[in-house]
Amino acid sequence: MAQQGGVTVDGLTFTRYGDDRLREECGVFGIFDHPDAAAMTALGLHALQHRGQEASGICSYDGRNFHSERRMGLVGDNFSKPDVLARLKGRMAIGHDRYSTTGDPLIRNVQPLFCDIDTGGFAVAHNGNLTNALTLRRELISSGAICQSTSDTEVILHLLSRSKKRRIVERFIDAIRQVEGSYALVCLTNDMMIGARDPIGIRPLVIGRLGTSYVLASETCALDMVGAEFLREVENGEVVVITDEGLESHRPFPMRPARPCIFEYIYFARPDSIVGGQTVYDIRKRMGIELAREAPINANVVVPIPDSGVPAAIGFSQQSNIPFELGIIRNHYVGRTFIEPEQRIRQLGVKLKHSANPGVIRGNSVVLIDDSVVRGTTSKKIVQLIRDAGAREVHMRISSPPITHPDYYGIDTPSKKDLLAANLSLEEMRKFMGADSLAFLSVNGIYRAIGLEHRDDRAPQFTDHCFTGDYPTSLTDHDGSIPRQLSLLAEVG
Amino acid sequence: MAQQGGVTVDGLTFTRYGDDRLREECGVFGIFDHPDAAAMTALGLHALQHRGQEASGICSYDGRNFHSERRMGLVGDNFSKPDVLARLKGRMAIGHDRYSTTGDPLIRNVQPLFCDIDTGGFAVAHNGNLTNALTLRRELISSGAICQSTSDTEVILHLLSRSKKRRIVERFIDAIRQVEGSYALVCLTNDMMIGARDPIGIRPLVIGRLGTSYVLASETCALDMVGAEFLREVENGEVVVITDEGLESHRPFPMRPARPCIFEYIYFARPDSIVGGQTVYDIRKRMGIELAREAPINANVVVPIPDSGVPAAIGFSQQSNIPFELGIIRNHYVGRTFIEPEQRIRQLGVKLKHSANPGVIRGNSVVLIDDSVVRGTTSKKIVQLIRDAGAREVHMRISSPPITHPDYYGIDTPSKKDLLAANLSLEEMRKFMGADSLAFLSVNGIYRAIGLEHRDDRAPQFTDHCFTGDYPTSLTDHDGSIPRQLSLLAEVG
Amino acid sequence: MAQQGGVTVDGLTFTRYGDDRLREECGVFGIFDHPDAAAMTALGLHALQHRGQEASGICSYDGRNFHSERRMGLVGDNFSKPDVLARLKGRMAIGHDRYSTTGDPLIRNVQPLFCDIDTGGFAVAHNGNLTNALTLRRELISSGAICQSTSDTEVILHLLSRSKKRRIVERFIDAIRQVEGSYALVCLTNDMMIGARDPIGIRPLVIGRLGTSYVLASETCALDMVGAEFLREVENGEVVVITDEGLESHRPFPMRPARPCIFEYIYFARPDSIVGGQTVYDIRKRMGIELAREAPINANVVVPIPDSGVPAAIGFSQQSNIPFELGIIRNHYVGRTFIEPEQRIRQLGVKLKHSANPGVIRGNSVVLIDDSVVRGTTSKKIVQLIRDAGAREVHMRISSPPITHPDYYGIDTPSKKDLLAANLSLEEMRKFMGADSLAFLSVNGIYRAIGLEHRDDRAPQFTDHCFTGDYPTSLTDHDGSIPRQLSLLAEVG
Amino acid sequence: MAQQGGVTVDGLTFTRYGDDRLREECGVFGIFDHPDAAAMTALGLHALQHRGQEASGICSYDGRNFHSERRMGLVGDNFSKPDVLARLKGRMAIGHDRYSTTGDPLIRNVQPLFCDIDTGGFAVAHNGNLTNALTLRRELISSGAICQSTSDTEVILHLLSRSKKRRIVERFIDAIRQVEGSYALVCLTNDMMIGARDPIGIRPLVIGRLGTSYVLASETCALDMVGAEFLREVENGEVVVITDEGLESHRPFPMRPARPCIFEYIYFARPDSIVGGQTVYDIRKRMGIELAREAPINANVVVPIPDSGVPAAIGFSQQSNIPFELGIIRNHYVGRTFIEPEQRIRQLGVKLKHSANPGVIRGNSVVLIDDSVVRGTTSKKIVQLIRDAGAREVHMRISSPPITHPDYYGIDTPSKKDLLAANLSLEEMRKFMGADSLAFLSVNGIYRAIGLEHRDDRAPQFTDHCFTGDYPTSLTDHDGSIPRQLSLLAEVG
Repeated sequence: MAQQGGVTVDGLTFTRYGDDRLREECGVFGIFDHPDAAAMTALGLHALQHRGQEASGICSYDGRNFHSERRMGLVGDNFSKPDVLARLKGRMAIGHDRYSTTGDPLIRNVQPLFCDIDTGGFAVAHNGNLTNALTLRRELISSGAICQSTSDTEVILHLLSRSKKRRIVERFIDAIRQVEGSYALVCLTNDMMIGARDPIGIRPLVIGRLGTSYVLASETCALDMVGAEFLREVENGEVVVITDEGLESHRPFPMRPARPCIFEYIYFARPDSIVGGQTVYDIRKRMGIELAREAPINANVVVPIPDSGVPAAIGFSQQSNIPFELGIIRNHYVGRTFIEPEQRIRQLGVKLKHSANPGVIRGNSVVLIDDSVVRGTTSKKIVQLIRDAGAREVHMRISSPPITHPDYYGIDTPSKKDLLAANLSLEEMRKFMGADSLAFLSVNGIYRAIGLEHRDDRAPQFTDHCFTGDYPTSLTDHDGSIPRQLSLLAEVG
Repeated sequence: MAQQGGVTVDGLTFTRYGDDRLREECGVFGIFDHPDAAAMTALGLHALQHRGQEASGICSYDGRNFHSERRMGLVGDNFSKPDVLARLKGRMAIGHDRYSTTGDPLIRNVQPLFCDIDTGGFAVAHNGNLTNALTLRRELISSGAICQSTSDTEVILHLLSRSKKRRIVERFIDAIRQVEGSYALVCLTNDMMIGARDPIGIRPLVIGRLGTSYVLASETCALDMVGAEFLREVENGEVVVITDEGLESHRPFPMRPARPCIFEYIYFARPDSIVGGQTVYDIRKRMGIELAREAPINANVVVPIPDSGVPAAIGFSQQSNIPFELGIIRNHYVGRTFIEPEQRIRQLGVKLKHSANPGVIRGNSVVLIDDSVVRGTTSKKIVQLIRDAGAREVHMRISSPPITHPDYYGIDTPSKKDLLAANLSLEEMRKFMGADSLAFLSVNGIYRAIGLEHRDDRAPQFTDHCFTGDYPTSLTDHDGSIPRQLSLLAEVG
Repeated sequence: MAQQGGVTVDGLTFTRYGDDRLREECGVFGIFDHPDAAAMTALGLHALQHRGQEASGICSYDGRNFHSERRMGLVGDNFSKPDVLARLKGRMAIGHDRYSTTGDPLIRNVQPLFCDIDTGGFAVAHNGNLTNALTLRRELISSGAICQSTSDTEVILHLLSRSKKRRIVERFIDAIRQVEGSYALVCLTNDMMIGARDPIGIRPLVIGRLGTSYVLASETCALDMVGAEFLREVENGEVVVITDEGLESHRPFPMRPARPCIFEYIYFARPDSIVGGQTVYDIRKRMGIELAREAPINANVVVPIPDSGVPAAIGFSQQSNIPFELGIIRNHYVGRTFIEPEQRIRQLGVKLKHSANPGVIRGNSVVLIDDSVVRGTTSKKIVQLIRDAGAREVHMRISSPPITHPDYYGIDTPSKKDLLAANLSLEEMRKFMGADSLAFLSVNGIYRAIGLEHRDDRAPQFTDHCFTGDYPTSLTDHDGSIPRQLSLLAEVG
Repeated sequence: MAQQGGVTVDGLTFTRYGDDRLREECGVFGIFDHPDAAAMTALGLHALQHRGQEASGICSYDGRNFHSERRMGLVGDNFSKPDVLARLKGRMAIGHDRYSTTGDPLIRNVQPLFCDIDTGGFAVAHNGNLTNALTLRRELISSGAICQSTSDTEVILHLLSRSKKRRIVERFIDAIRQVEGSYALVCLTNDMMIGARDPIGIRPLVIGRLGTSYVLASETCALDMVGAEFLREVENGEVVVITDEGLESHRPFPMRPARPCIFEYIYFARPDSIVGGQTVYDIRKRMGIELAREAPINANVVVPIPDSGVPAAIGFSQQSNIPFELGIIRNHYVGRTFIEPEQRIRQLGVKLKHSANPGVIRGNSVVLIDDSVVRGTTSKKIVQLIRDAGAREVHMRISSPPITHPDYYGIDTPSKKDLLAANLSLEEMRKFMGADSLAFLSVNGIYRAIGLEHRDDRAPQFTDHCFTGDYPTSLTDHDGSIPRQLSLLAEVG
């Protein structure tokens, strides 16, 4: 689910520090038939916390009632307390991490969402973004539906509730056939857990097994956390239904090749998660290796922009034989609400999170490695930081291609006019950043790092529109005819 | 709207002290075309705070967006702050006070409720209770509606949203024609404020005028607070629509005689509010006068159980010529969450709120005056308190008839098995309380106090089923066939 | 203890509504040798809550450690929770209520205060105000003491800690011999509870007995709450020491006649408390009776300004045979932080707390009864409120004399320039208030109401300088030579 | 300052996850004569946040009043808000970060501490621990002092306040001459800022210059943050006094060689801070290099235990030519209050913070690098984690010597019985951890890494008693004759 807007709490509008990054929008987890279902879900959500830190929720079912807790803040701070877990009764539970940087701090938008339908209760946790949610919402309201959240996910509940089918799985399939865009869904009913991925599998979802329990999770690192064995991924377009009888697979869509989001490899997934048989860490290291091959440079030291640039920098160092050093120290204590100081001391801004390590930088020719460039504002500040620390030369190397197109599938990208690479040539970008040289990994380079020979332009193996403009689905809400305001209500708190 | 359940906050279940009272369920207020619409609504809700202290909400419309703030706690603590009022922009606003003693502390149930419909936004504040809400909710869910609150009021939004009529007023009338029970509604749309009372006018609603602005409120005391002139009551079964063109009246129901709730006179309305041309204070004093005539007693001193017994005690004193004295002192600082001390010192319980004034009590024959008896537990404790303070005799006089039947129209009464007068004879009640004598005002006595000759049993002038068992509407949800659980979700916080 | 300043919380400065009243500064309570010492203290503080609502604290001793909890807010909200009481272990405990209207919301100023001395621990709760605390504090700091609060009470701890005497009681007496002003103290050490009143007994303190336990409290109503029997008052200048051996009385000061604060009778004490063998309610009623004798008036109705004017109004009515009616309704739900609305609607101000009852007022000649006049601003607004409600005539009667001098003994009075009666003649006050007539009870009238023949001007029986300018102690800090700023630290929160 | 005890908040006792680490106790910062003194102090404290995350405080002086704000939580969350900074008026300010893991969550113990003395106000921020504070406190109380905190730092205020000297600097010197142990102090008076280090300079303090402003800070990284130039360290035993006239240096102690705490190099200081002309990062890398020389091993991969083991692992890798890889992924979102799950799933514990990266581990012989071992419990769990991930061999290398003695100078170490190396032989430790081999860096190895030839056993160049038992000061409080309980008061909140 996706939200837009600015963070206003108690009447103050906060400008978060350092928002020049891509943001994933959520992690999902579910477990069926386990005596500590809620505690296991809390652990799973903790392992997926890198996918969303703003809020989390868990919904369990105890055979009689559903129980739901939704909180702002970290899983560890909210869902490790015995009293909270004790209220989340039952042997089945699902949960959701919401990401931390955007807008609407309303608890009513925190997932899992729940509704009563005539067959019982239905709870859903969604990672992804529906590209026709506004259009569907408008149609639903025209025919008398009342929308209570501003979340695209709620549309799925309405479609399911209105379906004329009898069985809940049929109604769920009826609903997801009407939506476009990306989704990895974990749902809970009175007697089953459902997992589903969109027809081309943009967002990830894996299946694990823990004793007799089934587990669903966004990444394998959540399986590791709870001690579950990794069985397989939910496939693109697959609906898995887990009941007391076991796991049953449905294929409601015509078969199509999978096309997962390439940014999971570049940025979102945790390094120790396994995708396609390899760890994400290994893939990122190979991106650094490919980058060193494509854009070699004569320099003294390879310095990652922490933390996300580290694996590629290790790869770059190993391939180039230039020593890897921690030339930038990251401060992990920035907190949630650091407000940048006033104009007079604004130039200090970047130092809140990064500081230069002078012993590594001074007098050296430095290769800086980052995983991606969005607006370029952070890159520019860091180049300056490194120069101020006495670098002789600063060479910027980016382990993914230039981002030229916004995402609509659950990654929070700025609009095209704010994407650096959509507006400037390579040389203009280099000047903007103030680097002595600048290079990006090529599109084919990234495909090679993942283990393919190259991108198949007729049938691309990944969702990579941010680099290529090649959007894999229709974008109904984004053709310009739909008003963007979801609700007339501007509610606070 | 009505809620059931126990108060659980942060995992603690609180037993509120002194819950042996009737509880009204809400006050409503609205103002159309005023530069300080939200501030005036806050003042109006403050004047109606005796009708509900748990939570309040205000929804305004600024010509472009609706703005809503809903808060737990007193109006004065939440809605007097300039920043809160500044967010509630616009020249029209409605508001709602929710009462303080029951159950579900979820902010999602605090009113006004809001929905987007295809003609714009619609906000509603409701005083009363629908007696077929569960039945309607079940039907709505069967046909695919998603209910997000557990409030009966939400049903009105769904019916309105689903109406096939074109104009918003027609859709509103379409909706209220399908509901049973009691309602005084104040609604806000993009260009109008709507007020409505149920066909027999169980819950109150009045119209005022402040300069060029129209005001709607549960009681005249709210008009006085904002300096508005009292125009008239909204009549039973009337829908008033206030727009820039002025006030327009609709009569969507067949004409029937009004039958307002008699408890507004006995207990709920504020003493300075005017009903039928007289202040509630005067009516209550006459209840005391009638009581002194019907059940005279030879005693030294008339003592009210504060605060609600005071007007009747003044009347009783004036009629009987027995001096009126404050023989019971009330502690107003009990707070929201006093937990009664443990068993060993439990007998101190009643003293948390009431203490005997020994100078008035000792050696005297005391007439205690209270407005009503529900479970009788407080009466029993107070009789003991007065005896312990040295009273020679204790005579209990109640200025309304015995309550033998529960209410379903927005008064929070216990079920029949917990109503003292539904289970015991007068003499048994006297013994239970430990009083030397006990008398209740008769049903006709109360009609006389209001200014009528007597109750017209074929066409009773008031809703008085609590005393007579004569319910004025059908009670669809209460015929035993509907499950009482509104939702499978047991959400906390 | 006393504090000055304005209430600032979270950076907002609150102007409390309706601050035209006198304020008492604290209630104290202690119990020795009871299994539920902390729970009993909480109950006692609850009964004394009228003396202070801002904050409360309890300190207990379990034979090994002292335990202290100090909280902002009502006793019932803070000290009834089982976990809080469970932390306050031990068979002896003392407590303190702090009043609600002034300044410094720092928890470090909430009592009981505690210090380690070389003989053990010492905790103190203080009602009153020391008139040489600033002078002593300056001397203490000069000789190397570090003051951590801005409370006058802390001075007592320093003096006690520095005393060269050996036994704790001797050190305590050493300390109180050096302070001037008013105090009722309840103290706790490792093996005793101490109670003390200043040499003329300005602030009240009583002794009770509950089984084998001794109780100390500001008023008898707190004894009633816990079921303790009233033994006697602590006498002026008396120090009572309660140990396992029983109660021992010390007389460290030369014998002088008692001279208790007359405002306890007029305003502060709870009506059901007993002073000098009579209830405060009876005394206040007689103030009304004396007032009716001194300043009779031909009118239709006697109306108290609630709640404090009620007993005098009952007396006035009984003496004058003019009927007593509730012509002003008080709203008890104003909350702690109601901010008065902006200028445009400011004239509504007084209605937040008081509203006129039109049935009682309209067309009548009204006698308004209040207990005292401070700035006169509320009186003026209420006269206007009554006139607006249609009164034919408004006669103001005050059941105490004009306040012409500020207090320095623990009552929060404005400075002389803001005291209405210090600046205007009776006729000017009448005009200011807008009343048709105005009368105050005479000084001798109030002495008569208490049961004396008249004030003995050579040896006045009460502390009554607010009416007479006759201050009973020296006022070292107030001779103009001492800077008023207690600390250079302006700490918030 | 140092605290003992367990963390109890709202009645819950929290067991923090992963407490098998050394903890530094505080960072200090001060700035004199800057228009944004408080904002600069907040930035400086943010840069020092690694030294203490539990609480922070800032005290400023505006020429008239001191202003103090002390808050639980991160600097960025508390001290970046404009309203908070606006309250901290003035051109001079000092601040303090308190560390996060121990005991007493009382705001009264958060620094800077402040007192009024007869020459004005005095505020102090302290990094270090006094080893005769209990003894001095006992003497102070005997002579009548009242201690309000349980902090050792308060003793300095009392000694200063009681000094008979006239000038504030003389009084300060008088005070520090009486204390033993470690201290880096930053103080603020009405007209000066004072910095001081104990006679052997155990805790660090540096001087910087920003335009015309002087800055004092625990580490150079705080100078970098605010853009100040590094002038020099405050020397051991030096007192620097900064006034409008500039910086003045005092030498109140006999000259002795400096002996800074070696753990600043090993663990506490930020890698980019400069000590003795080199970055801490470079020194730590050389510890890895020395370790690779002293304890070489044949393995496939060098894996740091993040984050503190990274620099040494890079050094080990460069020296040994075994590739450096991120084989353990750290989860930075553990939050403040993660409570470990119940027994049944307890074995998951270590995974809350660390997870194995299977692509790096599986089938390999792994060298794990950590900076130190305290209890060894985390080491044991991590070895198991690595084995579970499929490592063929696990070799543990520690880049500092075995810790055999507790610290009393401000590092929170367990008592001797809980220090692994104080109780087990090297081989026993290896078995306990379950490693295939185990080696520690030698004492001389660490001296070499810092750039010396070896430890001079007659005049050791560092405070290194944790490895050698050679304590550099007397330990008055720790000779067993002083009771450990600071206060009889067990206060909560």
